[in-house]
Amino acid sequence: MLNRLGNQTLVFKNKPRVVGSYSVVGPKEGKGNFGKFFHKVLEDDLFGEKSYEAAESKMLKLAITEAISDARINKDEVDALFAGDLMNQIISSSFAAKTLGVPYFGLFGACSTMAESLIMGACHVDGGFARYVACATGSHFSSAEKQFRYPLELGTQRPPSSQWTVTGMGCTILGNTNTGICVESATIGKVVDWGVSDVNNMGAAMCPAATDTLKAHFYDTGKTPDDYDLILTGDLGKLGSEILLDLMEYNGFKIGNNYSDCGQMMYNNTQKTFMGGSGCGCGASILNSYVYSRMRKGELKNVLFVATGALMSTTSSQQGNSIPSIAHAVSFSLGGKERNV
Amino acid sequence: MLNRLGNQTLVFKNKPRVVGSYSVVGPKEGKGNFGKFFHKVLEDDLFGEKSYEAAESKMLKLAITEAISDARINKDEVDALFAGDLMNQIISSSFAAKTLGVPYFGLFGACSTMAESLIMGACHVDGGFARYVACATGSHFSSAEKQFRYPLELGTQRPPSSQWTVTGMGCTILGNTNTGICVESATIGKVVDWGVSDVNNMGAAMCPAATDTLKAHFYDTGKTPDDYDLILTGDLGKLGSEILLDLMEYNGFKIGNNYSDCGQMMYNNTQKTFMGGSGCGCGASILNSYVYSRMRKGELKNVLFVATGALMSTTSSQQGNSIPSIAHAVSFSLGGKERNV
Repeated sequence: MLNRLGNQTLVFKNKPRVVGSYSVVGPKEGKGNFGKFFHKVLEDDLFGEKSYEAAESKMLKLAITEAISDARINKDEVDALFAGDLMNQIISSSFAAKTLGVPYFGLFGACSTMAESLIMGACHVDGGFARYVACATGSHFSSAEKQFRYPLELGTQRPPSSQWTVTGMGCTILGNTNTGICVESATIGKVVDWGVSDVNNMGAAMCPAATDTLKAHFYDTGKTPDDYDLILTGDLGKLGSEILLDLMEYNGFKIGNNYSDCGQMMYNNTQKTFMGGSGCGCGASILNSYVYSRMRKGELKNVLFVATGALMSTTSSQQGNSIPSIAHAVSFSLGGKERNV
Repeated sequence: MLNRLGNQTLVFKNKPRVVGSYSVVGPKEGKGNFGKFFHKVLEDDLFGEKSYEAAESKMLKLAITEAISDARINKDEVDALFAGDLMNQIISSSFAAKTLGVPYFGLFGACSTMAESLIMGACHVDGGFARYVACATGSHFSSAEKQFRYPLELGTQRPPSSQWTVTGMGCTILGNTNTGICVESATIGKVVDWGVSDVNNMGAAMCPAATDTLKAHFYDTGKTPDDYDLILTGDLGKLGSEILLDLMEYNGFKIGNNYSDCGQMMYNNTQKTFMGGSGCGCGASILNSYVYSRMRKGELKNVLFVATGALMSTTSSQQGNSIPSIAHAVSFSLGGKERNV
C-alpha cells in the first residue's frame, strides 16, 4: 500500500510538522504589503558583503540559522538541509550549506523550490529518515537581474508584463513532533510548456504548470477548492494569476473565492513592479512569515501552497526554446491533535 | 526509531532494488576502457541536434526511456524522476523531463548527482511514496567546456591536472520489488572546502569531501573498507584518487585493496585526458553499465558508490571563492533473497 493518491500526490501519514520558520527580505520588500510580517528587513541588500551573490548566500544562511533557533533545536539536530536557488549551480545554497556543516541535498526547481524542498523534507521526516529537516530557498533581485537579464547599471526599461525578483529568503524546519502545522499531502508537478518564450512574462509561462498541478491535486485527493481557506501560488504575478483563474474555470474549478498569489500581493501599487514579485524568495518569504503566522493563530486552517518555477536558462532561451515550467503543491493543515489520538 | 545510523547515514529497511538501468556515451568514451560495457555508444556527440545542449538533453532522455524499458515497466508507472546535470538551471534534465511527462524533481549536486538522485529515489521507494522511480544524470564534454571553461573553437591548451568531462548519461530505475541489486544504505554528504580554487584541478578540490563522507559512512555503519568488494568514487581522476588514498590512510582507513575511481578508469592512456574523466556522466555511465553488470553476474557482491561534486560556478570562481565540494555514498548489495524470507 503506497502513501500515494492518484498519479502525483503523496500522503504523509505521520504528518510532519512545521516546527520553525524564518524570513528575511530586502528593503523594497520591507516597504511592501507584508513588511510587518517578515522576521527581518535588511536596510541594505548588499548585507555588508562585496557582491550581491555573497549577500544572497548570507541571507539564506541567516534564514536557515534563525529557523533552526525558532524550532528550539541545535544545528546538529538538523538531519538534512534541502535547499536551492536561482543562481547558476545554486551557489547561494551550496555556500550557505558549507558554513552550516549539515548533511545537504541541493535542489533546482527555480521558483518552485520552496515547495520542492518541503516535499523532499516531508518525505524524509515521514519516512523515518530524519527527525528534523531544514527546507530553504530564496532569491535576490540584483543577482538575478545580472544573471538572467541585464546589468543593473544599464538602466534597461522593463516591459509592462515583467515581474520584480524578490530579495527574500524563507526557511521551514519540519519535524516529527506532535504539535504544529501539519504537512498533509503534496502533489509533485510535471514539466509543462505551452510555448511561451517571453522571459519578461513569467506569469504566462508558468500558469499552465500551476493549472496542471492544481487539477492533479483535486483529482488525486478528491478535494475541492472550497476545502482550502487559502490556495496560494508562488509568483504568477497579476497577469499570471488572472490567467490561472480563467484556466481553472475552463477546467471546471472555481478557485477565485480563496485564491491569492504571493507575487501579486508582495508589493504595493506605488512600487513600480508592474506584474508584481517573482523569484524563489517570493513565495518562500510569505509562506514562512504571513501564512504560518495566520495558521498558528487559527485564522487559516487549510492552506494549499503551490510554488511555480520557470525552468529555462539564458542558454535555452538564446537557442530559441520556449520556457518549460513546473509547479509543486503542498497541503498544510491545522491538525495538531490528530496524532495524539 | 529512525531509519538512520549515526549522523549522516540512512538505512533502507525495505531494500529498494535496481530494476533497470541504461548508459549512453559519446564516441571518445566508447573508445575508452569501458566501451564494451556501455549500452549505446554514439557515433557523433551532436546526436542529430543543432546544439550540444540539445544533444545532452536528448541523450539523457534516451537513458531514462531505455532504463524504463530495461525495467519492463511503462513510463506511466514511474512515480517520480529525480534528475540533474551540470548545465545552468539544469536545462538538460528539465527539457528531458518535459518530453517524458512524469512527476519530476530537479536536483543539483554537480558530479555527485548520480548518488544524490539514488538517495532521493531510494527514500521515496523505501518510505512507500513510490513503487518505481527513475534516477538519472549525465554530462556532455562540449556543453560543459563551453559553459565552465573556454569555447572549444579557441583550442585552449589544457593543464596537466585537468580532467575531461565525460559525454555520457546513466539512469537507474529503483523499485519496491523482491529481486535485484539492493540499495542498503546511503551516507549524505556535507559541503567541504579545503581552499582549492583551481578549476583545472577538480580532483584535489573534491577529495576532501570524499574523505569526509567515507569516514562518516564507516563510523556510522561500523563497516570497514574490507566489507566492500569495490569502493568506487565518481570522478576524482588520477591525482584526486591518489590524494584520497593518502587522506584515508591518514585517517586510519586502508581502502587501497578494493578502491577504484571512475574518472581514473574511463579513458585509456592514449586518449590524452591527463587526469582522466569527470562530470556527472562519468560515474553515472560506469555505475549503470559495468558495475551493475558485474553485480548481476555475482562478481561483485557489495559495492560502495561515492559520487563527488564540485559546487562552484563561474561566478563564484571569478569572485575569488574556493571550490566547495560534496560527496554522497550509496551502498549496494546482492541481497536478493533477504526480503522473501
